[in-house]
Amino acid sequence: MNWTPNPADKKPMHKQIQEYMKEKITNGEWPIGTKIPSQRHLAATFSVNRSTVVTATENLIAEGLLSGNKGGGTKVINNTWSLLAAGSHMNWSSYVEAGIYQPNSSTIRHINEAEFQRGIIRLGTGELAPDLLPSDQLSELFSGMKHRSVHLGYEHPKGNGELRQELAKHVKKRGIETSPSSILIVSGSLQALQLISIGLLPPGANILAEKPSYLYSLPLFQSAQMKITGVSLDKEGIQLSSLKDQHEKEKGTVLYTIPNFHNPTNVTMSEQRRQELLHRCEMMHLPIIEDDAYGELWFHSPPPLSLKAQDKNGMVLYLGTLSKTFSPGFRIGWVVGPEHVIERLADLKMQVDYGASSLSQWAAAEALKTGIYDNHVASVRYKLKEKSQKAQAILEKHLESLATWNVPSGGFYFWLTLHKPVSMGKLFKHCLDQGVLLNPGALYDHETSQHIRISFAYATLPEFEYGIKIVAKSLKNLYL
Amino acid sequence: MNWTPNPADKKPMHKQIQEYMKEKITNGEWPIGTKIPSQRHLAATFSVNRSTVVTATENLIAEGLLSGNKGGGTKVINNTWSLLAAGSHMNWSSYVEAGIYQPNSSTIRHINEAEFQRGIIRLGTGELAPDLLPSDQLSELFSGMKHRSVHLGYEHPKGNGELRQELAKHVKKRGIETSPSSILIVSGSLQALQLISIGLLPPGANILAEKPSYLYSLPLFQSAQMKITGVSLDKEGIQLSSLKDQHEKEKGTVLYTIPNFHNPTNVTMSEQRRQELLHRCEMMHLPIIEDDAYGELWFHSPPPLSLKAQDKNGMVLYLGTLSKTFSPGFRIGWVVGPEHVIERLADLKMQVDYGASSLSQWAAAEALKTGIYDNHVASVRYKLKEKSQKAQAILEKHLESLATWNVPSGGFYFWLTLHKPVSMGKLFKHCLDQGVLLNPGALYDHETSQHIRISFAYATLPEFEYGIKIVAKSLKNLYL
Repeated sequence: MNWTPNPADKKPMHKQIQEYMKEKITNGEWPIGTKIPSQRHLAATFSVNRSTVVTATENLIAEGLLSGNKGGGTKVINNTWSLLAAGSHMNWSSYVEAGIYQPNSSTIRHINEAEFQRGIIRLGTGELAPDLLPSDQLSELFSGMKHRSVHLGYEHPKGNGELRQELAKHVKKRGIETSPSSILIVSGSLQALQLISIGLLPPGANILAEKPSYLYSLPLFQSAQMKITGVSLDKEGIQLSSLKDQHEKEKGTVLYTIPNFHNPTNVTMSEQRRQELLHRCEMMHLPIIEDDAYGELWFHSPPPLSLKAQDKNGMVLYLGTLSKTFSPGFRIGWVVGPEHVIERLADLKMQVDYGASSLSQWAAAEALKTGIYDNHVASVRYKLKEKSQKAQAILEKHLESLATWNVPSGGFYFWLTLHKPVSMGKLFKHCLDQGVLLNPGALYDHETSQHIRISFAYATLPEFEYGIKIVAKSLKNLYL
Repeated sequence: MNWTPNPADKKPMHKQIQEYMKEKITNGEWPIGTKIPSQRHLAATFSVNRSTVVTATENLIAEGLLSGNKGGGTKVINNTWSLLAAGSHMNWSSYVEAGIYQPNSSTIRHINEAEFQRGIIRLGTGELAPDLLPSDQLSELFSGMKHRSVHLGYEHPKGNGELRQELAKHVKKRGIETSPSSILIVSGSLQALQLISIGLLPPGANILAEKPSYLYSLPLFQSAQMKITGVSLDKEGIQLSSLKDQHEKEKGTVLYTIPNFHNPTNVTMSEQRRQELLHRCEMMHLPIIEDDAYGELWFHSPPPLSLKAQDKNGMVLYLGTLSKTFSPGFRIGWVVGPEHVIERLADLKMQVDYGASSLSQWAAAEALKTGIYDNHVASVRYKLKEKSQKAQAILEKHLESLATWNVPSGGFYFWLTLHKPVSMGKLFKHCLDQGVLLNPGALYDHETSQHIRISFAYATLPEFEYGIKIVAKSLKNLYL
């Protein structure tokens, strides 16, 4: 909700709120049967005392629009139209609950919502800070937009041809040889996973993935009646013995891996492990989804060549994205794979949204062609490295006695191992109550109660230090 | 495929093609086991004689890379790496066939591909012609882009706040009262249908819809184990008696309707029918998806107010889009509905693609705010009306003895009723062989063999006339 009452208005605040809520009921935004948000939540949203909300609600109860039942939550029981007899209202809740897809976990929903609250410190956010985004370059790029250079119609099922040509050159730097016809443009690499889940995997599919993994935070595969089986990681990446064991125990349909600056652990797979992994997967006929969101964000030297670069047998679907290196707001990612797999995914892309934004595709192609993209990434690498070192010093100062962590050589994350297990839910809530948002490790491994993913990419350093102090305080309390 | 051999090159064409194909095999774009496209298809793609393709293919067979079996299609049987023993290759075909979602129908896949072939005349395309798109206004808008005005990070789950505010004002012109918190931004209204299919409907759901309807051309609901039940239409819109019958026979879960310039019939629902429909659905507790893609494209006077405008009980999910009135390439649509339904859909939007392009959202908000959008739509209305009248004269000249059709008062389409039933597949193929692409009526009603959807929005008038002549000739042949 964007609306808040105006304290300067002659009309009392509770009256303004009352009218606002009445309008929602009258408009059908809150139809009969709607359970309205809690008084606590409404007070926070409207930035008023709870008593103000209580007065507004009581007046609407007196008007006969809301129910007085405090136990089961306040409900809309009537609107000003009375077209329907009481009780014969539309029951949307049964629809919301009937859908095939599960909702995001309550922690994720909290995070998605809280990120847009004013004044919140975002320690978890896997996103470049606003001052690391290419705003100036983009204004420049757009102001030089030539007349009629942007295609405004629907695009080819695989995406804009020019962008695919630029991407074929771009992935060559990661060692990947492909023609544009084996590239699919997607609206961010999360969409690639969605298309794979509906297009290439049967219900009951078993997805092997590092544990912990970003993949565990997505309800996508579970919603499609698939399961994720965790494979152990060590300092060189995914463990082959664990992969073999898990695959033997329960046949994997596909392996999902993040070889570079892994989310959340920040481990980078060694050259040798890559070769062994590829060979092993070939022997097992196990295709690989290689998610390379962070590969360009190295601090000292580039990571080994991608798995796809060595994949001469078309085992690997390679996912890339602009979201981590350039701008999440573009919503542009890509998949490289065997041509007929790309065609299947392109056909599905046409079924779900008719393709990615042409404006974004045009701007992405221009940024790649003009070198704006490469220059920007070079500068981001440098700035992120600096920031990571300062963030590292802050962790040492406040968390040394409470946790251990990796020293990042790229990417966005510290993966904190806590000295003692704690309730992940309590830790999240304690911090959020004090305005600090973090990503509990349990998002990436449901069984852990001893990890946190901390991003040094988003918050400013003063915010970061303030936030880390709150985390330290909360941990000390929870360790007692 | 974008590549074609270069006739100016000293190297013979068949040699160039041979090397191109070999590269695809070597890169893993055509892994071992891949069934390569037919010689006919390859010859068309490469713009060469079939014999040139035959020579290239025979050489690759001689090299041992392709199989010689002409009966079952030519397959890749080896690559230059020979890492794997023959027969132990990755079987992607089983993955492509295993996915939960059905492919698009072969006609739709043909259309999606053929639209990008050079020189094709597009009589079916539901899209404004390039010269009806706001290219100039857009260059202007972007060149005036203020420093840091575009948000480049991830957006709020419901979409950019400014755009939602502009949309709240915009839908008010269609009589809809809503706050921005009950609006969800989607990547085109097709995505709204996808989110509804996975988020609000149970497997086995029964979607009532006009028959014919655009909805029949989408495999979306069938893929999610749902079915579509057709309801008859008359000149005033969906027939209430047929709705009652169908709902009684098999309980509908939701009604999908296009009340304005219906796709494909171009019928607009009368004021009285709207009121009766809304009342009937309230009584049946049947929620409505109101797709208003074409409502602004009236030629003489605006259609009656939307169903949502009279929906005081939150029965209606209202879908709008920029695709038909402004630019498909923006990929921007919106859903207006009860707040907690919007929240459920927003949570799913975060699961499938983390939101629509920020560039598109920014540009859409600016176009609405500055009046660029309204001015453009006013001019499109005028130009489309003119075009429809000229197109109408062309139909009269060439098709009068072969079919009947509606006179459009808005929208994009003529819905042709053929004097005799014909094979839809043959008609489609006859025309396509002569470079004319049309949308057979069977896409919108699988049982019909007597309808074609002709769009006057896309092709130029000379193209339109040329295309209609081909249609007339094909019909005469098929009527024999």
